[in-house]
Amino acid sequence: MEMKLPGQEGFEASSTPTNVSAGELDSDLGPGPGHSPDGPSATESKELGVPKDPLLFIQLNELLGWPQALEWRETGRWVLFEEKLEMAAGRWSAPHVPTLALPSLQKLRSLLAEGLVLLDCPAQSLLELVEQVTRVESLSPELRGQLQALLLQRPQHYKTTGTRPCWGSTHSRKASDDEEAPLREQRQNPLRQKLPPGAEAGTVLSGELGFLAQPLGAFVRLRDPVVLGSLTEVSLPSRFFCLLLGPPMLGKGYHEMARAAAVLLSDPQFQWSVRRASNLHDVLAALDAFLEEVTVLPPGRWDPTARIPPPKCLPSQHKRLPSQQREIKGPAVPCLTSAEDRHRHDPHTPSPELQRTGRLFGGLFQDVRRKAPWYPSDFLDALHLQCFSAVLYIYLATVTNAITFGGLLGDATDGAQGVMESFLGTAVAGAAFCLMAGQPLTILSSTGPVLVFERLLFSFSRDYSLDYLPFRLWVGIWVATFCLVLVATEASVLVRYFTRFTEEGFCALISLIFIYDAVGKMLNLAHTYPIQKAGSSAYGCLCQYPGPGGNESQWTRTRPKDRDDILSMVRRGLSDFSSVLAILLGCGLDAFLGLATPKLMVPREFKPTLPGRGWLVSPFGANRWWWSVAAALPALLLSILIFMDQQITAVILNRVEYRLKGAGFHLDLFCVAMLMLLTSVLGLPWYVSATVISLAHMDSLRRESRACAPGELPNFLGIREQRLTGLVVFILTGVSIFLAPVLKFIPMPVLYGIFLYMGVAALSSIQFTKRVKLLLMPAKHQPDLLLLRHVPLTRVHLFTAIQLACLGLLWIIKSTPAAIIFPLMLLGLVGVRKALERVFSPQELLWLDELMPEEERSIPEKGLESEHSFSGNDSEDSELMYRPKAPEINISVN
Amino acid sequence: MEMKLPGQEGFEASSTPTNVSAGELDSDLGPGPGHSPDGPSATESKELGVPKDPLLFIQLNELLGWPQALEWRETGRWVLFEEKLEMAAGRWSAPHVPTLALPSLQKLRSLLAEGLVLLDCPAQSLLELVEQVTRVESLSPELRGQLQALLLQRPQHYKTTGTRPCWGSTHSRKASDDEEAPLREQRQNPLRQKLPPGAEAGTVLSGELGFLAQPLGAFVRLRDPVVLGSLTEVSLPSRFFCLLLGPPMLGKGYHEMARAAAVLLSDPQFQWSVRRASNLHDVLAALDAFLEEVTVLPPGRWDPTARIPPPKCLPSQHKRLPSQQREIKGPAVPCLTSAEDRHRHDPHTPSPELQRTGRLFGGLFQDVRRKAPWYPSDFLDALHLQCFSAVLYIYLATVTNAITFGGLLGDATDGAQGVMESFLGTAVAGAAFCLMAGQPLTILSSTGPVLVFERLLFSFSRDYSLDYLPFRLWVGIWVATFCLVLVATEASVLVRYFTRFTEEGFCALISLIFIYDAVGKMLNLAHTYPIQKAGSSAYGCLCQYPGPGGNESQWTRTRPKDRDDILSMVRRGLSDFSSVLAILLGCGLDAFLGLATPKLMVPREFKPTLPGRGWLVSPFGANRWWWSVAAALPALLLSILIFMDQQITAVILNRVEYRLKGAGFHLDLFCVAMLMLLTSVLGLPWYVSATVISLAHMDSLRRESRACAPGELPNFLGIREQRLTGLVVFILTGVSIFLAPVLKFIPMPVLYGIFLYMGVAALSSIQFTKRVKLLLMPAKHQPDLLLLRHVPLTRVHLFTAIQLACLGLLWIIKSTPAAIIFPLMLLGLVGVRKALERVFSPQELLWLDELMPEEERSIPEKGLESEHSFSGNDSEDSELMYRPKAPEINISVN
Repeated sequence: MEMKLPGQEGFEASSTPTNVSAGELDSDLGPGPGHSPDGPSATESKELGVPKDPLLFIQLNELLGWPQALEWRETGRWVLFEEKLEMAAGRWSAPHVPTLALPSLQKLRSLLAEGLVLLDCPAQSLLELVEQVTRVESLSPELRGQLQALLLQRPQHYKTTGTRPCWGSTHSRKASDDEEAPLREQRQNPLRQKLPPGAEAGTVLSGELGFLAQPLGAFVRLRDPVVLGSLTEVSLPSRFFCLLLGPPMLGKGYHEMARAAAVLLSDPQFQWSVRRASNLHDVLAALDAFLEEVTVLPPGRWDPTARIPPPKCLPSQHKRLPSQQREIKGPAVPCLTSAEDRHRHDPHTPSPELQRTGRLFGGLFQDVRRKAPWYPSDFLDALHLQCFSAVLYIYLATVTNAITFGGLLGDATDGAQGVMESFLGTAVAGAAFCLMAGQPLTILSSTGPVLVFERLLFSFSRDYSLDYLPFRLWVGIWVATFCLVLVATEASVLVRYFTRFTEEGFCALISLIFIYDAVGKMLNLAHTYPIQKAGSSAYGCLCQYPGPGGNESQWTRTRPKDRDDILSMVRRGLSDFSSVLAILLGCGLDAFLGLATPKLMVPREFKPTLPGRGWLVSPFGANRWWWSVAAALPALLLSILIFMDQQITAVILNRVEYRLKGAGFHLDLFCVAMLMLLTSVLGLPWYVSATVISLAHMDSLRRESRACAPGELPNFLGIREQRLTGLVVFILTGVSIFLAPVLKFIPMPVLYGIFLYMGVAALSSIQFTKRVKLLLMPAKHQPDLLLLRHVPLTRVHLFTAIQLACLGLLWIIKSTPAAIIFPLMLLGLVGVRKALERVFSPQELLWLDELMPEEERSIPEKGLESEHSFSGNDSEDSELMYRPKAPEINISVN
Repeated sequence: MEMKLPGQEGFEASSTPTNVSAGELDSDLGPGPGHSPDGPSATESKELGVPKDPLLFIQLNELLGWPQALEWRETGRWVLFEEKLEMAAGRWSAPHVPTLALPSLQKLRSLLAEGLVLLDCPAQSLLELVEQVTRVESLSPELRGQLQALLLQRPQHYKTTGTRPCWGSTHSRKASDDEEAPLREQRQNPLRQKLPPGAEAGTVLSGELGFLAQPLGAFVRLRDPVVLGSLTEVSLPSRFFCLLLGPPMLGKGYHEMARAAAVLLSDPQFQWSVRRASNLHDVLAALDAFLEEVTVLPPGRWDPTARIPPPKCLPSQHKRLPSQQREIKGPAVPCLTSAEDRHRHDPHTPSPELQRTGRLFGGLFQDVRRKAPWYPSDFLDALHLQCFSAVLYIYLATVTNAITFGGLLGDATDGAQGVMESFLGTAVAGAAFCLMAGQPLTILSSTGPVLVFERLLFSFSRDYSLDYLPFRLWVGIWVATFCLVLVATEASVLVRYFTRFTEEGFCALISLIFIYDAVGKMLNLAHTYPIQKAGSSAYGCLCQYPGPGGNESQWTRTRPKDRDDILSMVRRGLSDFSSVLAILLGCGLDAFLGLATPKLMVPREFKPTLPGRGWLVSPFGANRWWWSVAAALPALLLSILIFMDQQITAVILNRVEYRLKGAGFHLDLFCVAMLMLLTSVLGLPWYVSATVISLAHMDSLRRESRACAPGELPNFLGIREQRLTGLVVFILTGVSIFLAPVLKFIPMPVLYGIFLYMGVAALSSIQFTKRVKLLLMPAKHQPDLLLLRHVPLTRVHLFTAIQLACLGLLWIIKSTPAAIIFPLMLLGLVGVRKALERVFSPQELLWLDELMPEEERSIPEKGLESEHSFSGNDSEDSELMYRPKAPEINISVN
């Protein structure tokens, strides 16, 4: 006698025709050949020409409603992380790290050891599979029939496709109503899009079944994966099938056991082993190997019901895999999720581009030779939709930049330069650089440090009653000359001596200057415009922006998280343009209150901001001829500044992990030198590579794997490196010159507000600031920074104090008439850092800073080993053996 | 041949005289009798008259430096959580949840199974213990001698007592230099203060020892705990001793095994079992029981080197303990760490005080009868130093409150009331309430809702050209009368019908009124004082305060975290007085810029703010007599408002978990009624209990266990409930009336800023706001709120939409001439909530709101079970079966 269960008829009728073999399905779903599926990391394995195991989707179907209304319901699913069906709320939980109870794993083991293990089962349909699985001695023919009927019953999947959540099919509905419906739903499942082509399914069926006398366990590996009707919510060919049924027992026995089985199946190493297992023993050995590697949390110290969110960066599976598998895998894909992460992975490995050739201009020629073959592809690679959005994003950042720095430049030089020059210069210099440079993704900017220097230069020329622009022209000529010398002598390879100590000292100083200037300007305004004091209200408003959730993201974020959401276009758009919005809001408030604030100086037509000058700067003007020689001295200093700024940015941009086509440090510096000449002749701002905006440019061109497991971050595949996006951005910027008449409504305090914010944001992003905070913090409340695990607190404080002293000294120099030599003092930071090698051990410097080239060599001999010999447990954080490092010079761009 | 090792001589010489038995030591260190130590939760067990197992401090000493310079070093310690010695950094890590590798636990098990297990070992010194432990067959006499010498070697403890971290004794130093030093250090160890008297030690010794042929495992339970010389860093009598030595092996074998042993020993249940174990089998059974309960994290999904910080609230050990032990334990001590936590624990259990007697004034008489016996102790209990700091803290909050609300009152009533009245009223009403009320910890305040009503009343009386204060006097008389009726009829028991729906609706409305008024006032100022527009700069500055780390803590925090720090006094002081600082800064900026802002109206002498009136309000003034009758109508509405506000606060304050002496709902309302009369006669503000400031008062009087394990939060022992702190606070407030001449320098915009902040803070603290945010958030980005796990999103949105509609309706009513009836509409919220029972299921309401008394009864029958029958796994968050609930009416106080 067979028990007819609701939904069963429909299932039996439709199961045969929909059994598609794995091969057929693959050709339907993706271009990959039968056994070389295109998994998330398939790129590497493909490159190595070795097929990789398909991704496994695991689903748990539980038997509920015993004894009245038996039905199968999907209650959990796994790819990398666990998703639990929240029945009452009718939705899937957020993906989380699964936690298990140890006994459930052990019970599962013994059930499998006694149960049925079918490897390479030839079943071609669910019916065949069910027949094979129920062929157990302990079952009477009658029970076998009942069980088979039950197993063939169509399970209830939770659907999220409609507007209202509902169940795949309810057992009150007639199954004959719409026999194809569950299969259609199965194919339309949105999860299907997230799984890579070639993915396979594993199903765990579990529950309490009163008519069974003893537990029934079965583990099946299908020889050929087939779609088992609507067994799984997604139409995937099933590879594994696990059955855990038995008489009612205390607690959540079968549920927990089934979860254990699902978690096991979702483990890559268990998968690897069980795919190759040839008998029960192999399966149990794989389970035991899993147990060997689990982490155990003691009871009572941790709430086992708490859900652990997926970690940002998964621990490397590399060393876990068996040797055969390990050889197949390519290099580990770094998680590049945040600006900080970017710097974790061996930030100072010298690129091959930084090797000295020993010939005059040898580096430059090598750069050209290295980059030339890529040149055609630099234009062809731009033919992708992603480039359009990148252009829009970077264009807006560039225009904001041009307005802000143009406004400040005009302010700093009494209008000798201004917004018009900023737009023109950005367009010309940026476009030229994109066409010629070694690293075309670089975005140029009239950055902070150079602006500070320009201000000093202007006040110097005013003190000596010099004609500013001609004097500046000669400074530019000299800088270009010095830079050419630096290119010729391959000086760029020295960039490896700029450690974080130097970078952060530089960044902190510039940030402080920004903050000091912005506040000072505001206070000045309050005196200069006593009636229009109300302008400070606009300033007050702007200050509020940097609050949590404000436009902070604009300056520090490098990767939007909500890429695949409908609303996130809106949301991301708002955050991307938050600086534009801040400016608009400030202008609106200014206009609404009718404040007589000083406004941005912009000429009404396309002509230089300073009235009465042409676009070409005369070579001497009112200056005596020997000033053109004397300009060599400030030029020397400016060259140092530009060299440091340009090369630090270039090193960051050309890190190996971004997988770019290759750097061109010498070529880039050469381009900067040439542009220096051009901009000086035209009286335009000076341009250097800008770190953050270039990183943003690169980020907007990331190629990422689209198919990924719930909770998993997309895999980084590379960057669409090309010259076209930058070129278009700067052409658009050039066109925007005709926006100039509109720009004159922008009040200066609004720009000061942005300036102030940039200073604060840059200052708060560096590790130095964290260490200064540590100075004021009792040990108990200090965060668990890795450096604090490895360096005594007093040594950390000493390092911070030295940095603070350097900064104080630099500030004093900056405030005296000797101010103009401060780039030289910046270089002095490198010397101080070198001297620190006598005060701190290499281990300490490794954690506090990073190592200079010589030290790196010294470490293996005398270094870390002595520490290791005493503590056998220090490798505990070997996975974390990187220095968390903040972006060096956040400020220099936006 | 005995191997002499450095430090050994000193150890042997000093070990004998320092062996103190547990009994002796106990009498030295604490008042507790020999076997009834005063552990963290000892209060309850004492109350029940049953002794409790002592706390165990576990230390791991590792043998390092094989083979050249063998020495024992302490590398880890445990009480509840793990602290790891960070050797390179020379400091203890922050306490964290220990994680283990499963194989290390299994290896430990097999080593113990084969090793030596001595239970009730009679050793009285380390020498005796070492002799017993090394009496193993496998050891040759020579090896035994070497091993004994090694075990007697003095271990190196890490000291934090000095200014520089250093090791307890270095092996280069002669041991004979200062033989007593380690023992002195041991006694001076700061950890000693944190452990309760009677605590015992367990030591795990582990390491690689080349001369051993096979692993040596020993587990010893001492019959009488003795101080084993300087074996442990703290001078505690040792109870357990575990030795894990062996030949060098791969990996961190012994280290991980020793950690496993230490974690095992730190587990309360394992401790319980192993203290009672009579043979090896019992010990292994205890280990197996531990394994049964561990949580397992799969490999590769979670970084095993990440340190998990101690949870805020430990999972209950109650159900884990064996039945004998469970009977001993008292009620679980709730973690009352945050305002939210306070509300988690069954917030609406009706107190016995809320039972109806059925007699006129029956409740009031019962309240008096219940509170009278406590009256003498209400003064004697105040004799504690803690009360002084509580007075200072609450006094400053009260004065800020009096200034802010006084200023706003004066503003709202054209000076009919003002700061002078606010001070006088606060002093008189507050002191009187403290002396007479049922809950003397309550702090009265002229709260938000009443202030809003007062504003409405004033504008009403102005519309009808009434003499305000006489009219107000009659309103007060009527309110007192109505409140007396409510007391007589025991209406306070109805308070159980005010669910979170009502409370949050009320709170949201008031918050919005605050924000609307503050912004409106500011915009008005910009028109009224066009020249002094700069006043908005002060406003802009104030707006910045609510930023992260700002004075948010002042309004929402109820428990400072850094109680036992030196600097935290400074820090806490700053945060406690942040509102005072904000006012001072605002005033300073106003004075510095010389702004002509409107200032707080304060009379120069002690006289009413309104010129020309005396302290007694004339009963009719210029009003017609029948207005005294008409006043009954607004009085009815105000009575509803006061009843709601007073009773909601009273319920929150008198929650069972605070373990107060008993509530007096009727008595409190009676006092409020009497004070209503008094303040109306004198023309002072009206007063009601204030939630947040009263909670802060209570919090500053918490009694907490001082001895607690590292990483553990102190145990809550009770509240120093007394009448004196409140009384002194209000006397001081009264004295502060003479501060009034100073107060007139406070600009009104500063007070508006505080008002605005309070509105925003209160609004952001309620669950309603969280749910409104959910409306705008895509499901993927929603936080993992418990209510979302249990209620479908559409139902959550429906509930929020209904609340929003109610709020909109209330706002419309408030903005029409019918405004004055809005308290009646507030009461209407209770009706709406009742009607929601027809729309939502009890389960849904349980998660979205809370249940009304009738529903609570209905739940067990038809309610939760149907849900459970379908999902066997819903009890997964049974530990979390509470609704996270925000403080209801944050605003009504500060």
